[in-house]
Amino acid sequence: MTITMYDLAGADPERRFSPYCWRTRLALAHKGLDVDAVPWRFTEKERIAFSGQGLVPVIVDGDRVVHDSWKIAQYLEATYPDRPSLFGDNAPAQIRFIQGWADSILHPAIGRMIIADIVALIDAKDAVYFRESREKRFGMTLEAFSGDREQLLPDFRKSLQPIRLPLADFPFLGGNAPTYADYIVFGAFQWARCTSPFRLLAEDDPVLAWRRRIEGLFGGLASRAPAFD
Amino acid sequence: MTITMYDLAGADPERRFSPYCWRTRLALAHKGLDVDAVPWRFTEKERIAFSGQGLVPVIVDGDRVVHDSWKIAQYLEATYPDRPSLFGDNAPAQIRFIQGWADSILHPAIGRMIIADIVALIDAKDAVYFRESREKRFGMTLEAFSGDREQLLPDFRKSLQPIRLPLADFPFLGGNAPTYADYIVFGAFQWARCTSPFRLLAEDDPVLAWRRRIEGLFGGLASRAPAFD
Repeated sequence: MTITMYDLAGADPERRFSPYCWRTRLALAHKGLDVDAVPWRFTEKERIAFSGQGLVPVIVDGDRVVHDSWKIAQYLEATYPDRPSLFGDNAPAQIRFIQGWADSILHPAIGRMIIADIVALIDAKDAVYFRESREKRFGMTLEAFSGDREQLLPDFRKSLQPIRLPLADFPFLGGNAPTYADYIVFGAFQWARCTSPFRLLAEDDPVLAWRRRIEGLFGGLASRAPAFD
Repeated sequence: MTITMYDLAGADPERRFSPYCWRTRLALAHKGLDVDAVPWRFTEKERIAFSGQGLVPVIVDGDRVVHDSWKIAQYLEATYPDRPSLFGDNAPAQIRFIQGWADSILHPAIGRMIIADIVALIDAKDAVYFRESREKRFGMTLEAFSGDREQLLPDFRKSLQPIRLPLADFPFLGGNAPTYADYIVFGAFQWARCTSPFRLLAEDDPVLAWRRRIEGLFGGLASRAPAFD
Protein backbone atom coordinates (compact mmCIF):
# COMPACT_ATOMS: atom_id res chain seq x y z
CA MET A 1 0.00 0.00 0.00
CA THR A 2 1.27 3.45 -0.88
CA ILE A 3 2.09 5.76 2.03
CA THR A 4 1.06 9.39 1.62
CA MET A 5 3.57 11.95 2.82
CA TYR A 6 2.94 15.67 3.13
CA ASP A 7 6.14 17.30 1.89
CA LEU A 8 7.06 20.99 2.06
CA ALA A 9 7.23 22.54 -1.43
CA GLY A 10 8.24 25.89 -2.90
CA ALA A 11 6.30 27.94 -5.47
CA ASP A 12 7.45 25.22 -7.86
CA PRO A 13 5.64 22.18 -6.42
CA GLU A 14 8.55 19.98 -7.47
CA ARG A 15 10.96 21.93 -5.26
CA ARG A 16 10.97 20.02 -1.95
CA PHE A 17 13.36 21.52 0.52
CA SER A 18 12.49 20.78 4.15
CA PRO A 19 15.40 19.06 5.92
CA TYR A 20 12.93 17.15 8.09
CA CYS A 21 10.91 15.99 5.07
CA TRP A 22 14.12 14.85 3.38
CA ARG A 23 14.90 12.76 6.45
CA THR A 24 11.54 11.07 6.02
CA ARG A 25 11.77 10.71 2.21
CA LEU A 26 15.06 8.92 2.61
CA ALA A 27 13.81 6.83 5.53
CA LEU A 28 10.86 5.64 3.40
CA ALA A 29 13.22 4.87 0.50
CA HIS A 30 15.58 3.04 2.87
CA LYS A 31 12.67 0.81 3.90
CA GLY A 32 11.74 0.33 0.23
CA LEU A 33 8.21 1.62 0.82
CA ASP A 34 6.04 3.18 -1.90
CA VAL A 35 5.28 6.79 -1.20
CA ASP A 36 3.15 9.52 -2.69
CA ALA A 37 4.94 12.69 -1.54
CA VAL A 38 2.36 15.40 -2.01
CA PRO A 39 3.41 19.05 -2.09
CA TRP A 40 2.35 21.12 0.91
CA ARG A 41 2.94 24.78 1.74
CA PHE A 42 3.72 26.41 5.09
CA THR A 43 0.35 28.12 5.22
CA GLU A 44 -1.78 25.08 4.41
CA LYS A 45 -2.31 24.16 8.04
CA GLU A 46 -5.89 23.02 7.46
CA ARG A 47 -4.76 20.31 5.01
CA ILE A 48 -2.84 18.50 7.76
CA ALA A 49 -5.14 19.42 10.65
CA PHE A 50 -6.15 15.72 10.83
CA SER A 51 -2.67 15.06 12.24
CA GLY A 52 -3.45 17.21 15.26
CA GLN A 53 -0.74 19.77 14.51
CA GLY A 54 0.57 22.03 11.75
CA LEU A 55 4.04 20.86 10.68
CA VAL A 56 5.35 18.45 8.09
CA PRO A 57 6.40 15.73 7.53
CA VAL A 58 3.13 13.92 8.16
CA ILE A 59 2.65 10.39 6.83
CA VAL A 60 -0.59 8.49 6.33
CA ASP A 61 -0.04 4.72 6.24
CA GLY A 62 -3.43 3.05 5.86
CA ASP A 63 -5.31 4.20 8.93
CA ARG A 64 -2.16 5.33 10.78
CA VAL A 65 -1.20 9.01 10.85
CA VAL A 66 2.26 9.88 12.13
CA HIS A 67 3.95 13.27 12.31
CA ASP A 68 7.43 14.40 13.43
CA SER A 69 10.36 12.97 11.48
CA TRP A 70 11.82 11.11 14.47
CA LYS A 71 8.47 9.54 15.37
CA ILE A 72 8.05 8.55 11.72
CA ALA A 73 11.47 6.87 11.73
CA GLN A 74 10.59 4.97 14.90
CA TYR A 75 7.19 4.03 13.44
CA LEU A 76 8.74 2.71 10.22
CA GLU A 77 11.37 0.73 12.13
CA ALA A 78 8.73 -0.84 14.39
CA THR A 79 6.14 -1.44 11.67
CA TYR A 80 8.49 -2.79 8.99
CA PRO A 81 11.10 -4.75 10.97
CA ASP A 82 11.83 -7.09 8.04
CA ARG A 83 12.95 -4.21 5.82
CA PRO A 84 16.52 -2.81 6.08
CA SER A 85 17.06 -1.33 9.54
CA LEU A 86 17.12 2.47 9.77
CA PHE A 87 19.16 2.34 12.95
CA GLY A 88 21.74 -0.22 11.87
CA ASP A 89 24.31 -1.94 14.00
CA ASN A 90 27.31 0.17 13.09
CA ALA A 91 27.51 1.96 16.41
CA PRO A 92 31.28 2.64 16.18
CA ALA A 93 30.79 5.15 13.34
CA GLN A 94 28.13 6.96 15.33
CA ILE A 95 30.33 6.97 18.40
CA ARG A 96 33.07 8.51 16.26
CA PHE A 97 30.66 11.33 15.44
CA ILE A 98 30.09 11.95 19.13
CA GLN A 99 33.84 11.88 19.64
CA GLY A 100 34.29 14.44 16.85
CA TRP A 101 31.80 16.69 18.59
CA ALA A 102 33.48 16.24 21.97
CA ASP A 103 36.97 16.89 20.64
CA SER A 104 36.20 19.82 18.35
CA ILE A 105 33.40 21.61 20.23
CA LEU A 106 33.01 20.45 23.83
CA HIS A 107 36.70 20.32 24.79
CA PRO A 108 37.67 23.76 23.45
CA ALA A 109 34.61 25.31 25.12
CA ILE A 110 35.32 23.71 28.51
CA GLY A 111 39.08 24.15 28.20
CA ARG A 112 38.74 27.87 27.76
CA MET A 113 36.81 28.17 31.03
CA ILE A 114 39.05 25.96 33.18
CA ILE A 115 42.53 26.32 31.73
CA ALA A 116 43.79 28.84 34.27
CA ASP A 117 42.68 26.47 37.05
CA ILE A 118 44.60 23.60 35.49
CA VAL A 119 47.89 25.48 35.80
CA ALA A 120 47.33 25.80 39.54
CA LEU A 121 47.17 22.07 40.22
CA ILE A 122 49.66 20.47 37.87
CA ASP A 123 53.20 19.59 38.83
CA ALA A 124 55.60 22.58 38.92
CA LYS A 125 57.74 21.43 36.00
CA ASP A 126 54.60 20.62 34.02
CA ALA A 127 53.12 24.06 34.74
CA VAL A 128 55.96 25.81 32.92
CA TYR A 129 55.62 23.51 29.91
CA PHE A 130 51.84 23.72 29.97
CA ARG A 131 51.66 27.50 30.18
CA GLU A 132 54.32 28.08 27.52
CA SER A 133 52.91 25.58 25.02
CA ARG A 134 49.29 26.74 25.47
CA GLU A 135 50.07 30.46 25.45
CA LYS A 136 52.03 29.98 22.25
CA ARG A 137 49.08 28.12 20.72
CA PHE A 138 46.51 30.75 21.75
CA GLY A 139 48.77 33.79 21.22
CA MET A 140 47.86 35.25 24.63
CA THR A 141 48.12 34.53 28.35
CA LEU A 142 45.88 31.79 29.72
CA GLU A 143 44.11 34.34 31.89
CA ALA A 144 43.37 36.58 28.89
CA PHE A 145 42.23 33.52 26.91
CA SER A 146 39.85 32.49 29.69
CA GLY A 147 38.39 35.99 29.95
CA ASP A 148 35.13 36.31 31.85
CA ARG A 149 33.90 32.73 32.00
CA GLU A 150 30.58 33.68 33.57
CA GLN A 151 29.81 35.40 30.28
CA LEU A 152 30.67 32.27 28.29
CA LEU A 153 28.38 30.06 30.37
CA PRO A 154 24.95 30.70 28.76
CA ASP A 155 26.20 29.86 25.25
CA PHE A 156 28.11 26.88 26.59
CA ARG A 157 25.03 25.46 28.27
CA LYS A 158 23.02 25.96 25.09
CA SER A 159 25.69 24.10 23.13
CA LEU A 160 24.99 20.95 25.20
CA GLN A 161 21.64 20.42 23.49
CA PRO A 162 22.94 17.37 21.53
CA ILE A 163 23.45 15.60 24.88
CA ARG A 164 20.01 16.50 26.19
CA LEU A 165 18.07 15.02 23.27
CA PRO A 166 19.01 11.35 23.91
CA LEU A 167 18.79 11.96 27.67
CA ALA A 168 15.14 12.93 27.27
CA ASP A 169 14.41 9.31 26.29
CA PHE A 170 17.28 7.24 27.70
CA PRO A 171 19.41 7.24 30.88
CA PHE A 172 22.64 7.15 28.85
CA LEU A 173 23.95 8.43 25.52
CA GLY A 174 24.40 4.76 24.66
CA GLY A 175 20.72 4.11 25.41
CA ASN A 176 19.59 1.94 28.29
CA ALA A 177 23.18 1.16 29.24
CA PRO A 178 26.32 3.26 28.98
CA THR A 179 28.61 2.80 25.98
CA TYR A 180 31.91 4.34 25.03
CA ALA A 181 29.93 7.35 23.77
CA ASP A 182 29.09 8.12 27.39
CA TYR A 183 32.69 7.82 28.48
CA ILE A 184 33.86 10.14 25.69
CA VAL A 185 31.52 12.93 26.69
CA PHE A 186 31.84 12.26 30.40
CA GLY A 187 35.65 12.52 30.12
CA ALA A 188 35.26 16.21 29.31
CA PHE A 189 33.12 16.86 32.37
CA GLN A 190 35.39 14.80 34.61
CA TRP A 191 38.36 16.83 33.37
CA ALA A 192 36.50 19.96 34.48
CA ARG A 193 35.38 18.70 37.87
CA CYS A 194 38.89 17.38 38.63
CA THR A 195 40.59 20.67 37.82
CA SER A 196 38.22 23.53 38.48
CA PRO A 197 35.72 24.69 41.08
CA PHE A 198 33.78 26.48 38.34
CA ARG A 199 30.29 25.04 37.97
CA LEU A 200 29.63 24.30 34.32
CA LEU A 201 26.15 22.84 34.79
CA ALA A 202 23.01 24.19 36.42
CA GLU A 203 21.57 22.05 39.24
CA ASP A 204 18.45 21.21 37.22
CA ASP A 205 20.28 20.33 33.99
CA PRO A 206 19.62 16.71 32.93
CA VAL A 207 23.26 16.68 31.82
CA LEU A 208 24.27 17.00 35.48
CA ALA A 209 22.01 14.09 36.49
CA TRP A 210 23.58 12.01 33.69
CA ARG A 211 27.10 13.06 34.75
CA ARG A 212 26.33 11.86 38.27
CA ARG A 213 25.03 8.54 36.92
CA ILE A 214 28.37 7.98 35.20
CA GLU A 215 30.27 9.06 38.32
CA GLY A 216 28.43 6.34 40.22
CA LEU A 217 29.32 3.51 37.82
CA PHE A 218 31.89 0.85 38.75
CA GLY A 219 31.64 1.45 42.46
CA GLY A 220 31.95 5.22 42.06
CA LEU A 221 35.23 5.08 40.12
CA ALA A 222 34.91 8.64 38.83
CA SER A 223 33.08 9.95 41.86
CA ARG A 224 35.90 8.91 44.20
CA ALA A 225 38.59 10.78 42.22
CA PRO A 226 39.93 14.00 43.78
CA ALA A 227 37.71 16.71 42.37
CA PHE A 228 36.11 20.02 43.25
CA ASP A 229 32.50 19.27 42.54
CA MET B 1 46.64 -10.08 34.16
CA THR B 2 46.72 -6.46 35.25
CA ILE B 3 46.84 -3.84 32.48
CA THR B 4 49.16 -0.89 33.09
CA MET B 5 47.80 2.48 32.08
CA TYR B 6 49.78 5.72 31.98
CA ASP B 7 47.41 8.35 33.34
CA LEU B 8 47.94 12.12 33.38
CA ALA B 9 48.34 13.43 36.96
CA GLY B 10 48.66 16.82 38.64
CA ALA B 11 51.18 17.85 41.31
CA ASP B 12 49.06 15.61 43.55
CA PRO B 13 49.61 12.21 41.91
CA GLU B 14 46.07 11.19 42.86
CA ARG B 15 44.59 14.03 40.80
CA ARG B 16 43.91 12.46 37.41
CA PHE B 17 42.27 14.89 35.04
CA SER B 18 42.85 14.08 31.37
CA PRO B 19 39.52 13.69 29.55
CA TYR B 20 41.13 11.12 27.24
CA CYS B 21 42.52 9.12 30.15
CA TRP B 22 39.10 9.16 31.81
CA ARG B 23 37.63 7.70 28.64
CA THR B 24 40.11 4.85 28.93
CA ARG B 25 39.73 4.38 32.70
CA LEU B 26 36.01 3.97 32.25
CA ALA B 27 36.43 1.73 29.19
CA LEU B 28 38.69 -0.59 31.22
CA ALA B 29 36.19 -0.59 34.10
CA HIS B 30 33.33 -1.26 31.66
CA LYS B 31 35.20 -4.35 30.48
CA GLY B 32 35.85 -5.36 34.09
CA LEU B 33 39.61 -5.45 33.54
CA ASP B 34 42.18 -4.99 36.31
CA VAL B 35 44.25 -1.89 35.80
CA ASP B 36 47.23 -0.24 37.43
CA ALA B 37 46.76 3.43 36.47
CA VAL B 38 50.18 4.94 37.08
CA PRO B 39 50.58 8.73 37.38
CA TRP B 40 52.34 10.43 34.49
CA ARG B 41 53.20 14.08 33.89
CA PHE B 42 53.12 16.08 30.64
CA THR B 43 56.90 16.40 30.57
CA GLU B 44 57.71 12.73 31.17
CA LYS B 45 57.88 11.91 27.48
CA GLU B 46 60.77 9.47 27.96
CA ARG B 47 58.66 7.24 30.26
CA ILE B 48 56.24 6.45 27.43
CA ALA B 49 58.75 6.62 24.57
CA PHE B 50 58.30 2.83 24.17
CA SER B 51 54.84 3.60 22.76
CA GLY B 52 56.40 5.48 19.86
CA GLN B 53 54.84 8.81 20.79
CA GLY B 54 54.45 11.23 23.68
CA LEU B 55 50.79 11.38 24.73
CA VAL B 56 48.63 9.50 27.22
CA PRO B 57 46.64 7.34 27.62
CA VAL B 58 49.00 4.46 26.84
CA ILE B 59 48.12 0.94 27.97
CA VAL B 60 50.39 -2.06 28.31
CA ASP B 61 48.47 -5.34 28.20
CA GLY B 62 51.00 -8.19 28.42
CA ASP B 63 53.20 -7.63 25.40
CA ARG B 64 50.71 -5.30 23.66
CA VAL B 65 51.21 -1.54 23.81
CA VAL B 66 48.33 0.63 22.63
CA HIS B 67 48.03 4.42 22.67
CA ASP B 68 45.24 6.83 21.66
CA SER B 69 41.97 6.49 23.57
CA TRP B 70 39.95 5.49 20.50
CA LYS B 71 42.48 2.83 19.45
CA ILE B 72 42.47 1.54 23.03
CA ALA B 73 38.65 1.27 22.98
CA GLN B 74 38.80 -0.65 19.69
CA TYR B 75 41.59 -2.86 21.04
CA LEU B 76 39.62 -3.69 24.21
CA GLU B 77 36.45 -4.43 22.23
CA ALA B 78 38.34 -6.74 19.83
CA THR B 79 40.49 -8.42 22.50
CA TYR B 80 37.78 -8.94 25.12
CA PRO B 81 34.65 -9.66 23.07
CA ASP B 82 33.06 -11.72 25.87
CA ARG B 83 33.09 -8.77 28.26
CA PRO B 84 30.31 -6.13 28.12
CA SER B 85 30.40 -4.36 24.77
CA LEU B 86 31.77 -0.81 24.74
CA PHE B 87 29.86 0.01 21.59
CA GLY B 88 26.50 -1.45 22.54
CA ASP B 89 23.48 -1.95 20.36
CA ASN B 90 21.48 1.05 21.43
CA ALA B 91 22.00 2.98 18.22
CA PRO B 92 18.76 5.01 18.55
CA ALA B 93 20.12 6.97 21.50
CA GLN B 94 23.29 7.78 19.60
CA ILE B 95 21.28 8.78 16.55
CA ARG B 96 19.30 11.10 18.82
CA PHE B 97 22.57 12.77 19.78
CA ILE B 98 23.39 13.34 16.12
CA GLN B 99 19.89 14.70 15.65
CA GLY B 100 20.38 17.07 18.59
CA TRP B 101 23.55 18.36 16.95
CA ALA B 102 21.87 18.74 13.57
CA ASP B 103 18.85 20.56 14.96
CA SER B 104 20.63 22.84 17.41
CA ILE B 105 23.91 23.58 15.61
CA LEU B 106 23.89 22.57 11.96
CA HIS B 107 20.43 23.88 11.03
CA PRO B 108 20.79 27.34 12.59
CA ALA B 109 24.22 27.74 10.96
CA ILE B 110 23.01 26.72 7.49
CA GLY B 111 19.69 28.51 7.87
CA ARG B 112 21.38 31.81 8.52
CA MET B 113 23.34 31.55 5.25
CA ILE B 114 20.44 30.46 3.01
CA ILE B 115 17.34 32.00 4.53
CA ALA B 116 17.13 34.96 2.15
CA ASP B 117 17.32 32.52 -0.79
CA ILE B 118 14.45 30.48 0.62
CA VAL B 119 12.09 33.46 0.47
CA ALA B 120 12.80 33.76 -3.26
CA LEU B 121 11.56 30.30 -4.14
CA ILE B 122 8.62 29.61 -1.88
CA ASP B 123 5.02 30.16 -2.85
CA ALA B 124 3.91 33.82 -2.74
CA LYS B 125 1.47 33.39 0.15
CA ASP B 126 4.06 31.35 2.03
CA ALA B 127 6.72 34.03 1.49
CA VAL B 128 4.70 36.60 3.46
CA TYR B 129 4.12 34.15 6.32
CA PHE B 130 7.71 32.95 6.23
CA ARG B 131 9.28 36.41 6.24
CA GLU B 132 7.00 37.76 8.96
CA SER B 133 7.35 34.78 11.28
CA ARG B 134 11.13 34.55 10.90
CA GLU B 135 11.79 38.28 11.12
CA LYS B 136 9.76 38.37 14.31
CA ARG B 137 11.79 35.44 15.69
CA PHE B 138 15.16 37.01 14.79
CA GLY B 139 14.19 40.62 15.53
CA MET B 140 15.61 41.84 12.20
CA THR B 141 15.14 41.50 8.44
CA LEU B 142 16.22 38.20 6.91
CA GLU B 143 18.85 40.03 4.88
CA ALA B 144 20.33 41.67 7.99
CA PHE B 145 20.23 38.28 9.76
CA SER B 146 22.08 36.61 6.90
CA GLY B 147 24.75 39.32 6.85
CA ASP B 148 27.92 38.51 4.91
CA ARG B 149 27.73 34.75 4.53
CA GLU B 150 31.19 34.48 3.00
CA GLN B 151 32.49 35.60 6.37
CA LEU B 152 30.50 32.91 8.18
CA LEU B 153 31.83 30.13 5.94
CA PRO B 154 35.23 29.35 7.55
CA ASP B 155 33.73 28.84 11.02
CA PHE B 156 30.86 26.88 9.52
CA ARG B 157 33.20 24.51 7.74
CA LYS B 158 35.23 24.04 10.92
CA SER B 159 32.03 23.19 12.79
CA LEU B 160 31.52 20.14 10.53
CA GLN B 161 34.42 18.29 12.17
CA PRO B 162 32.06 15.84 13.95
CA ILE B 163 30.95 14.59 10.52
CA ARG B 164 34.49 14.21 9.23
CA LEU B 165 35.71 11.95 12.03
CA PRO B 166 33.50 8.93 11.19
CA LEU B 167 33.97 9.64 7.46
CA ALA B 168 37.71 9.15 7.89
CA ASP B 169 37.01 5.46 8.64
CA PHE B 170 33.60 4.71 7.15
CA PRO B 171 31.67 5.67 4.00
CA PHE B 172 28.61 6.68 6.04
CA LEU B 173 27.83 8.17 9.45
CA GLY B 174 26.03 4.88 10.10
CA GLY B 175 29.21 2.96 9.28
CA ASN B 176 29.49 0.70 6.26
CA ALA B 177 25.87 1.36 5.31
CA PRO B 178 23.74 4.47 5.73
CA THR B 179 21.41 4.71 8.72
CA TYR B 180 18.91 7.31 9.79
CA ALA B 181 21.86 9.28 11.20
CA ASP B 182 22.97 9.90 7.62
CA TYR B 183 19.53 11.04 6.57
CA ILE B 184 19.27 13.45 9.49
CA VAL B 185 22.50 15.23 8.64
CA PHE B 186 21.99 14.94 4.89
CA GLY B 187 18.56 16.58 5.22
CA ALA B 188 20.29 19.80 6.25
CA PHE B 189 22.56 19.80 3.20
CA GLN B 190 19.71 18.85 0.89
CA TRP B 191 17.69 21.77 2.27
CA ALA B 192 20.60 24.05 1.34
CA ARG B 193 21.21 22.65 -2.14
CA CYS B 194 17.47 22.79 -2.95
CA THR B 195 17.11 26.41 -1.93
CA SER B 196 20.38 28.23 -2.43
CA PRO B 197 23.17 28.52 -5.00
CA PHE B 198 25.59 29.30 -2.17
CA ARG B 199 28.30 26.63 -1.92
CA LEU B 200 28.59 25.50 1.67
CA LEU B 201 31.28 22.87 1.09
CA ALA B 202 34.71 23.04 -0.51
CA GLU B 203 35.28 20.69 -3.46
CA ASP B 204 37.85 18.62 -1.53
CA ASP B 205 35.78 18.30 1.66
CA PRO B 206 35.03 14.64 2.51
CA VAL B 207 31.63 15.90 3.65
CA LEU B 208 30.86 16.79 0.02
CA ALA B 209 31.87 13.32 -1.18
CA TRP B 210 29.60 11.82 1.51
CA ARG B 211 26.76 14.16 0.55
CA ARG B 212 27.06 12.97 -3.04
CA ARG B 213 27.00 9.34 -1.90
CA ILE B 214 23.67 9.96 -0.18
CA GLU B 215 22.36 11.85 -3.23
CA GLY B 216 23.09 8.76 -5.29
CA LEU B 217 21.17 6.33 -3.06
CA PHE B 218 17.80 4.88 -4.10
CA GLY B 219 18.31 5.56 -7.78
CA GLY B 220 19.43 9.14 -7.17
CA LEU B 221 16.31 10.11 -5.19
CA ALA B 222 17.91 13.22 -3.71
CA SER B 223 20.14 13.93 -6.66
CA ARG B 224 17.16 14.15 -9.02
CA ALA B 225 15.34 16.77 -6.93
CA PRO B 226 15.30 20.33 -8.27
CA ALA B 227 18.37 21.92 -6.73
CA PHE B 228 21.10 24.46 -7.42
CA ASP B 229 24.17 22.38 -6.81
